[in-house]
Amino acid sequence: MSKFAVLGHGVVGSGTVELFLKNKDRINKQSNIDLDLKYILDIRDFPGLPYSDKFTKDINDILNDDEVTIVAEVMGGVHPAYDFVLACLNKGKSVCTSNKELVAKKGAELLKAAKEHGCNFMFEASTGGAIPIIRPLHSCLAANDITAVAGILNGTTNFILTKMITDKMSFADALAMAQRLGYAEKNPAADVEGADACRKICILSSLAFGRHVYPDWVYCEGITELTLEDVSYAENWGGEVKLIGSVKRTEDGKILPMVAPRFVCSGCQLANIDDVFNGVMVFGDGFDQVMFYGRGAGKLPTASAVMGDVIDCAKRTGTDLSLFWEDSEEPDFIEDYQLDTVQMYIRVNNSDKAEIEKLFGEVEYLSREGQPENELAFITPAAAEGSLNAKLEYLGEKVLGKIRVFDM
Amino acid sequence: MSKFAVLGHGVVGSGTVELFLKNKDRINKQSNIDLDLKYILDIRDFPGLPYSDKFTKDINDILNDDEVTIVAEVMGGVHPAYDFVLACLNKGKSVCTSNKELVAKKGAELLKAAKEHGCNFMFEASTGGAIPIIRPLHSCLAANDITAVAGILNGTTNFILTKMITDKMSFADALAMAQRLGYAEKNPAADVEGADACRKICILSSLAFGRHVYPDWVYCEGITELTLEDVSYAENWGGEVKLIGSVKRTEDGKILPMVAPRFVCSGCQLANIDDVFNGVMVFGDGFDQVMFYGRGAGKLPTASAVMGDVIDCAKRTGTDLSLFWEDSEEPDFIEDYQLDTVQMYIRVNNSDKAEIEKLFGEVEYLSREGQPENELAFITPAAAEGSLNAKLEYLGEKVLGKIRVFDM
Repeated sequence: MSKFAVLGHGVVGSGTVELFLKNKDRINKQSNIDLDLKYILDIRDFPGLPYSDKFTKDINDILNDDEVTIVAEVMGGVHPAYDFVLACLNKGKSVCTSNKELVAKKGAELLKAAKEHGCNFMFEASTGGAIPIIRPLHSCLAANDITAVAGILNGTTNFILTKMITDKMSFADALAMAQRLGYAEKNPAADVEGADACRKICILSSLAFGRHVYPDWVYCEGITELTLEDVSYAENWGGEVKLIGSVKRTEDGKILPMVAPRFVCSGCQLANIDDVFNGVMVFGDGFDQVMFYGRGAGKLPTASAVMGDVIDCAKRTGTDLSLFWEDSEEPDFIEDYQLDTVQMYIRVNNSDKAEIEKLFGEVEYLSREGQPENELAFITPAAAEGSLNAKLEYLGEKVLGKIRVFDM
Repeated sequence: MSKFAVLGHGVVGSGTVELFLKNKDRINKQSNIDLDLKYILDIRDFPGLPYSDKFTKDINDILNDDEVTIVAEVMGGVHPAYDFVLACLNKGKSVCTSNKELVAKKGAELLKAAKEHGCNFMFEASTGGAIPIIRPLHSCLAANDITAVAGILNGTTNFILTKMITDKMSFADALAMAQRLGYAEKNPAADVEGADACRKICILSSLAFGRHVYPDWVYCEGITELTLEDVSYAENWGGEVKLIGSVKRTEDGKILPMVAPRFVCSGCQLANIDDVFNGVMVFGDGFDQVMFYGRGAGKLPTASAVMGDVIDCAKRTGTDLSLFWEDSEEPDFIEDYQLDTVQMYIRVNNSDKAEIEKLFGEVEYLSREGQPENELAFITPAAAEGSLNAKLEYLGEKVLGKIRVFDM
């Protein structure tokens, strides 16, 4: 018999309770376990719910109850979630979380605490929502040398981009629509400036390459500067603009994590992921490439991933040591993105082909409907990003936009 | 310390050995295990290989060596694989297999043997090649009520279809090309007539719904009748023809597994899976839908999945009881496909719209380049397949083709 507690009865928390209570008999039969929910922690009151007897406002009720061996943390934010999670792990209780900020900022420490106390810290729900990606990375694909991971990791920005691409809505209008539909927060900065995708690529990078990658160490660019002109040129080029979180091992054995909008060619699986859906591609020596697709957020999809971890903890004895990475103090294993070789889409005005070709060499010119005479858009040959940026600096105010080409 | 043996040194077997030896140190470190290869069973001689000391021709060397706790069966075929696997399980050795025929025909029995002897029978590689699908189904998605699974499960036919769609090659020419490239066997029946996809949907059905589904119980249709005319009409309709293995729970609590070509609309994730790639969609109450994409066959991709299971066995103590289904004696839980509600694409000649509409009601007519005057193609409204088939029988020799519309 395993009893679990849910910390937080917000959107994901109430979904977790709902999904478990609905499928409890099926879960226990199919997974051959005997799992039940004992507590829900929330400072608010929820009168009239059929499970209102399970609420508590005091984390100590959970910490001090030896019957509770698994805790689902779905509060979000670092505090007090971090303190609660660490206290649970120190008591030998496994924790399953959907909290990407917590994992991205404190993952190594919490994994270490779990290992020391013979329990588990799991976070399938922190990245890609319902999509199984954490377990495949460290378990199903464990025979491989993982070389890169890249994905559409934020549903809000993907919805906005889909509206810009499909309906030719401006960024501002598409954002307003996302807010009306409840996909974007009133303050949308964490989504549209890339911080949310950054946390997720930190988690995937840490797991794939074995050392904690902190968000501050990752070059991160959002979609706030993106225009419909860029979207049109991408279409002419044969692809779409997507916000891609990516990490790859570089030739000198470092890794390069990054979040940035990218030109993605239409033949790539990531180009076909629309609306609020997420998709994650993984590259490795044996399997070549796999892609995982599904709902990256939402009440029940996130609850599905949290409960998958809770069920795994109920089946398991001891710590799963393949779900682990070492802490890191310095970003000395993170490659300078300026050294990376990229092709770049560039849009300029008041220049001419002679100047462009003298600077960049043989470029591929793009066109769009309504293209002004003094506007040029093109794709550069592959070059070190630093050298391309130096040329863009030389062009100064002539530069209207630049977007890296996705090349995995 | 875990030692494993590989049964069969063919394409997948040699790939399994190669991938393990290449990544051995990385695997042992990341998964926190101490795994090594001890035997390779093959009746043939392979002189000059760097691991030639590991070969044996006698299964008893493996069966009687208590150091060997895990066996990778990558021989293919039911005999002698079945006898070897059963003997290993009866000795308490876990078995990991890529053998879809074995799992589809003997899975329930072998799972029972594993459970009785406290070991594991695993088969991630049997379905979808490198794609993690077995573990996600019974582990990551375990909190959900799975309602349906559908996928492109055979890379050979998907390659042929891609050539027909993209390059307008005939079925015969595309098959010949697949044979030249080594994607199709000299005798391609198992692929093009659907038997391979059928085995895989049997495995997915058994796992998703808990009872063994035998291949003989599944309605199975290949792509040998498919014409370029059908492909053109599908394009006009807004999609592609794909060979889909599918299973869904029906309203009366039975399940309906099936393999058949389908019209798949271009917005569906499965329409974007081309060439030899596979993709599997899973539907359930919490996560809604997820899709897994990757290489469905090949030396190293299949080896990646086999080794993922071997590593899991090395980490595990005891049987994973969530990877289990009951045997079944009668197909009384399999729905008659004629009772299923479908839309159907139908192509006829020597008929007219009056006759068609009298029979089928309000249909959606399709057109194609070079369409003869006496040819009609259309999509029917949704109806019980039995009633549609009765109407097709009435039309008799006028019917040139029919393909079900994919509607998940």
